[in-house]
Amino acid sequence: MGDTDALNIPKSSFPRVIIVGGGFGGIALAKKLRGKEVQVVLLDKNNYHTFQPLLYQVSTGGLEPDSIAYPLRKVFQGYSNFFFRLAEVTQVVIESNLVQTNIGNLRYDYLVIGTGSETNFFGNDEIEKNSMGMKSIPQSLNLRSLILENFEQALLTDNLHERDALMNFVIVGGGPTGVELAGALAEIKKGILPKDYPDLDTRKAQINLIQSGDRILKEMSEKASKKAEDFLEELGVQVWKNIRVTGYDGKTVTTKTDLVFEAATMVWAAGVKAVSVKGLEAKDIIMPGNRMKVNNFNQIAGYENIFAIGDLACMASDEMPNGHPMVAQPAIQQGRHLGENIVRMLNSKPMKPFIYKDKGSMATVGRNKAVVDLKHYKFQGIFAWFVWMFVHLFFLIGFRNRAVVFVNWVYNYVKFDREARLIIRPYNRDYSQFKD
Amino acid sequence: MGDTDALNIPKSSFPRVIIVGGGFGGIALAKKLRGKEVQVVLLDKNNYHTFQPLLYQVSTGGLEPDSIAYPLRKVFQGYSNFFFRLAEVTQVVIESNLVQTNIGNLRYDYLVIGTGSETNFFGNDEIEKNSMGMKSIPQSLNLRSLILENFEQALLTDNLHERDALMNFVIVGGGPTGVELAGALAEIKKGILPKDYPDLDTRKAQINLIQSGDRILKEMSEKASKKAEDFLEELGVQVWKNIRVTGYDGKTVTTKTDLVFEAATMVWAAGVKAVSVKGLEAKDIIMPGNRMKVNNFNQIAGYENIFAIGDLACMASDEMPNGHPMVAQPAIQQGRHLGENIVRMLNSKPMKPFIYKDKGSMATVGRNKAVVDLKHYKFQGIFAWFVWMFVHLFFLIGFRNRAVVFVNWVYNYVKFDREARLIIRPYNRDYSQFKD
Repeated sequence: MGDTDALNIPKSSFPRVIIVGGGFGGIALAKKLRGKEVQVVLLDKNNYHTFQPLLYQVSTGGLEPDSIAYPLRKVFQGYSNFFFRLAEVTQVVIESNLVQTNIGNLRYDYLVIGTGSETNFFGNDEIEKNSMGMKSIPQSLNLRSLILENFEQALLTDNLHERDALMNFVIVGGGPTGVELAGALAEIKKGILPKDYPDLDTRKAQINLIQSGDRILKEMSEKASKKAEDFLEELGVQVWKNIRVTGYDGKTVTTKTDLVFEAATMVWAAGVKAVSVKGLEAKDIIMPGNRMKVNNFNQIAGYENIFAIGDLACMASDEMPNGHPMVAQPAIQQGRHLGENIVRMLNSKPMKPFIYKDKGSMATVGRNKAVVDLKHYKFQGIFAWFVWMFVHLFFLIGFRNRAVVFVNWVYNYVKFDREARLIIRPYNRDYSQFKD
Repeated sequence: MGDTDALNIPKSSFPRVIIVGGGFGGIALAKKLRGKEVQVVLLDKNNYHTFQPLLYQVSTGGLEPDSIAYPLRKVFQGYSNFFFRLAEVTQVVIESNLVQTNIGNLRYDYLVIGTGSETNFFGNDEIEKNSMGMKSIPQSLNLRSLILENFEQALLTDNLHERDALMNFVIVGGGPTGVELAGALAEIKKGILPKDYPDLDTRKAQINLIQSGDRILKEMSEKASKKAEDFLEELGVQVWKNIRVTGYDGKTVTTKTDLVFEAATMVWAAGVKAVSVKGLEAKDIIMPGNRMKVNNFNQIAGYENIFAIGDLACMASDEMPNGHPMVAQPAIQQGRHLGENIVRMLNSKPMKPFIYKDKGSMATVGRNKAVVDLKHYKFQGIFAWFVWMFVHLFFLIGFRNRAVVFVNWVYNYVKFDREARLIIRPYNRDYSQFKD
């Protein structure tokens, strides 16, 4: 191969940093390394970045998938000594500083893993097989199609029991994803279903949100939890607390109590687990939720030149003994910080420890209904809703995406509508193959 | 089923009009029947209308699929005695006025078939298996993904022959679809590839447009053909005329001459054929291209209450012995006219014959480059391009779609970009299952 390594990436006199994953963390890191004396190789199994916080709007027809995804090559146009490869990492061979992928192997000087997280079914295969996750664009389109298909199907049946089940949506998990999805479905029930299905009694559609603990949005303030629950109830969502779901066969949701739900759709938003990489799991570094223990330089415990950032990284501190929350902000901040640290290392300066700046958290329930927790100020309602929209527009990548999302939101707000409601799965209802 | 027919559609004292297909014709017809003394049942295998003239922009990343598709239920919100069913028609049983579908059977008083057209491979199975069509949203997304995957793949190979083949795009058919696709690919080659793939010599990318006849856009004026060819050549497209493609095994495009092309992508835009319905084909009514002979009331020859409109309908006249062109305008006009005729029949008035108003034809090649043929005025270039855009925005359904398309076009124009370039097929490269 002459002066090239595998994957047709030329040898460089600069050290090579391989970044696995083009999420919030990976992008922030690569941006910090622009023009520095390193060669950066970004690997991702998709050719696009997914803005996960808005996936629920794709599932509920509020936004088109292309407006919350962004081509990774586009992000890095004009970067020198930067290489993107569409590749899935299969294994890391630490002894030889080698990353193995489905398209070939590549050596690294520094390796940064930012593979994020996936749905955690906690080992329940039955739930994994029959429920819907919502961690990727294909999954979200899948869910959107299923929701719409269920209403088409409900029209056709004379069996009232079956019809109710087709219009019963059970969402398990009272975190932001579950809350936001439940709220959006409730708005669809109110604003769109009666007009789209005049020949169906859509008042019978049910949205059930099930939370194992005693409050929803448990990472937020009690005020926010309470208010979000009020908002959901105003919208007609039934919120169930202290209920643990135990199974789902595609028809019946069972719980630890006598409570059961007959539902054709169950969305599992009850937890995520980190996506780790083979070759790194042997050590005593795997933490709860499959995360990897890192020190406050994001170094994976025991290694000098291997780092984890974002959802995967579990950086315990006194305030946060279980690491940072698995959301965008820690990933972005760690990515940026690690970029600066790598530059320091290149200049033979000592790295600086990462300090997390908690910018607060927020969730939206519906039209004019959101909750925001800042450090010194917590608020709910219409102003919170505008803040939520502004922040999400700000963090979206790309002017076109922002413009298209903005047009959609204005339209949806003015018209009480969500128009991206096409069933565009070009395949039948075998979900197993589309799980990732 | 009490007072309901199959498909849970209630019996009505008004006659029932079943419309098969929610394309331009079906929608125009159903709109004309709004509030009239008929029950309208629209059947379509998709829950959305596809604006086919812009599919090539989805394939080339210029537009997101949701902005050129429109939910059919949304079109007919507020209509009374109107029913949509997501269903594929499997057969018509004329003797009993019955439509059979995958979800059940339904009787009609009037039946209107507007099933449109699909790619015509002229019986060449090898080409059908290995080439890409572009008549539906899934097919367009498929093609978009393949184009992008090919460049990712080209990066990885050291085999120059293979690399050239991966960057060689052969488009067969010099009609509007082929011309528009070729132009868009040429603009991608020029504007996006060098920035997205700095480590690939994308100047070697080739776009070959192959036409069997002696000019492209043969349905348009000679002036338009000539100018479109000039535009394509300016953009770097190689136009081959009087060449008939005979085969494609996924690697090599063969022709009737010695000319062969080594290409990983062949798009087949060389013809369409009507999608007919089983149960109607037995009679002496099937015309070239699988179209059905209709009289000038759109009645299928031999029947009083069965009609065909749009691409499927072959209404021969002195000026157009082979029927109208298989494009949107005849479908829209026939749909509207048939709606008026059905109302006339209901009022025991005689039907009026359909008279086609030729509004001209147009095709766009690229930025500031389009050709327009009106009856008395033919023009090309930047003004034609603006007319093309205005007309397409006008005929798009829905304010949101227009707004989103407009935002995209302004962005693409100003930035020389096309951002919707995500590989979002959630499946592997087995295209056979996604052909429709």
